[in-house]
Amino acid sequence: MSHMLEETRRQPETLTRILEHGLRATRALAARFKTARPRFIVIAARGTSDNAAQFGRYLIEITTGIPVSLAAPSIVTLYGSSMDLRETLVVGISQSGESTDTNAVLAAARERGAVTVGITNEARSALAGIADHTLLVRAGKERSVAATKTYTGQLLSLYLLAAALGGSVQADHLSRVPDWVAGALRCEPQIAGMVERYRFMTGTVTVGRGLNYANALEFGLKLMETCYVLAEGFSAADLMHGPIALVERGFPVFVFAPPGPTRASIDAVLDRLAGLKAETVVIGEAGAAASHPQARLIEVPPEPGVGRQKRLPHQDLYTPIPYIVPAQLFAAHLAETRGLDPDRPRTLSKITRTM
Amino acid sequence: MSHMLEETRRQPETLTRILEHGLRATRALAARFKTARPRFIVIAARGTSDNAAQFGRYLIEITTGIPVSLAAPSIVTLYGSSMDLRETLVVGISQSGESTDTNAVLAAARERGAVTVGITNEARSALAGIADHTLLVRAGKERSVAATKTYTGQLLSLYLLAAALGGSVQADHLSRVPDWVAGALRCEPQIAGMVERYRFMTGTVTVGRGLNYANALEFGLKLMETCYVLAEGFSAADLMHGPIALVERGFPVFVFAPPGPTRASIDAVLDRLAGLKAETVVIGEAGAAASHPQARLIEVPPEPGVGRQKRLPHQDLYTPIPYIVPAQLFAAHLAETRGLDPDRPRTLSKITRTM
Repeated sequence: MSHMLEETRRQPETLTRILEHGLRATRALAARFKTARPRFIVIAARGTSDNAAQFGRYLIEITTGIPVSLAAPSIVTLYGSSMDLRETLVVGISQSGESTDTNAVLAAARERGAVTVGITNEARSALAGIADHTLLVRAGKERSVAATKTYTGQLLSLYLLAAALGGSVQADHLSRVPDWVAGALRCEPQIAGMVERYRFMTGTVTVGRGLNYANALEFGLKLMETCYVLAEGFSAADLMHGPIALVERGFPVFVFAPPGPTRASIDAVLDRLAGLKAETVVIGEAGAAASHPQARLIEVPPEPGVGRQKRLPHQDLYTPIPYIVPAQLFAAHLAETRGLDPDRPRTLSKITRTM
Repeated sequence: MSHMLEETRRQPETLTRILEHGLRATRALAARFKTARPRFIVIAARGTSDNAAQFGRYLIEITTGIPVSLAAPSIVTLYGSSMDLRETLVVGISQSGESTDTNAVLAAARERGAVTVGITNEARSALAGIADHTLLVRAGKERSVAATKTYTGQLLSLYLLAAALGGSVQADHLSRVPDWVAGALRCEPQIAGMVERYRFMTGTVTVGRGLNYANALEFGLKLMETCYVLAEGFSAADLMHGPIALVERGFPVFVFAPPGPTRASIDAVLDRLAGLKAETVVIGEAGAAASHPQARLIEVPPEPGVGRQKRLPHQDLYTPIPYIVPAQLFAAHLAETRGLDPDRPRTLSKITRTM
């Protein structure tokens, strides 16, 4: 069994551990933000961590109202621009903590007077040394080059950061996430049985919206890195705006379809894909593919302990972690079916040093 | 001849007209920003306009040091978040001015006290009605669904906006852009002769970095919309971080390689692609493909009147408009070779109304 698959399966334990330590660790941060709340937030990251950053952007803007920008590191590293970062929080996310340009953005920001937070799996990394505060992901060593548990660990850490910023994130809902992930993992036999169909897939499109847009990007990245499939992630709105033109009969499309405010937008995509006779896979609750009867559904259970009647105002707020699980399983099993080793993609290494 | 091709060819005249009116029009804006300089900027857009926004983000951060965020419209339209937008400038970019969610972001921002600017081709559009200030693109009616002259017109308008914000953008360099575009258009016979090779291309990757990253996204979008090719745009850094794993011998890759501070990063990509024996096309000056001897070069001339000795500190600052021209020509000619009408891509219309 690949490390990728093993690390994917162990996420309930990993997430439980992160949560135990994390709730305490963010108290100091919350106190600091209470006296000096940032006006703006910049998040710097690469690869899977950048997809986590994309999630963090939605989460923080939705729950705190503070505008968030995803850093373009070259503006600092190549163009040498000096940004005005007063009252700004700059967050760096990196599994290894050794991503050269993420660290360069944080170091420059600190010099310019910004408060800095590092989210990393490595306590002794350069990132942990540079940042004013470190949120340690504590996912344990990740043996697979393809990141799984550190991605969900980063998402969980971002919930804790949003809470520390005064965002409407509730500990009792977070505490149900590990069980929810365990529930999502039960779709593995179904996925193991379906990947063979995609043995010769050369290109695909992954779709999400809002809080699950990051998952569309992350699923796409996993398919590129571990299965060598050209996979482009889109928000439902961006797909419909133009690239939908490339979807022909039988073209494979993967759609994240959680309940909540993005539902109507996702249904419009599914309806369109049904009309185009695309080969569609939907990740969602029972009934999520109703507007596209020919689609295949990978079923994710609803939040444990929360009935369908008792929804939160933002019903999809806690979906991103359980919803990426079927995508991780799909990529790991598809890689195996294609005779590839997802733990060691060709031409890749675990740490990014960007020129 | 398609409208797309005609509109691509006429860009020198279009850009000259925009510049004539634009320099005057931004004076009022400059006066306003002088007394109240924004601390933070948010840009909202979809599709091609969103690629222009991506360019604007780099341009404004590099030349003014003001942090810029690209809006995620669903945070306003679906999640109903109330953002803290004090001292924030919110810019909406839309060819038609009728993009529903771009307009919703601007309307919400205005209510929250932000200063708003609309960049649109349509003086009587909803966007022009909502925004405090309108920068009119004046590109003339765009008959092709695939945007060309409005994209370069939007880029030019963003230079004017950066100048109004106090950015180091110089009118004498801008005034050379139309001639530079005329020079870039001279590669059309070469491109018309080379597209047949790509008749059956199903997927590709487009690459840029820094100020030309937006062009990689825009080239990808044009290939998807007009040629139905799955084309994913990457920054050179993001490609190298993971997705490079999918590049096999003979896989087609298009690389923007202008002179300037991104040069070493782009050379590292070209070197890697040479090693992988990828099928590479380079858009750059003579010699730009030196690190990948098997690559095909589409040559763009240097800035008119600026010798190679007399470079600006940011040598690529004015390259994005001339550099997109070969990509527009490539997409238009490839569409024709594939028997497609780039003016009317299947299943698309000119105005985006997003759910």
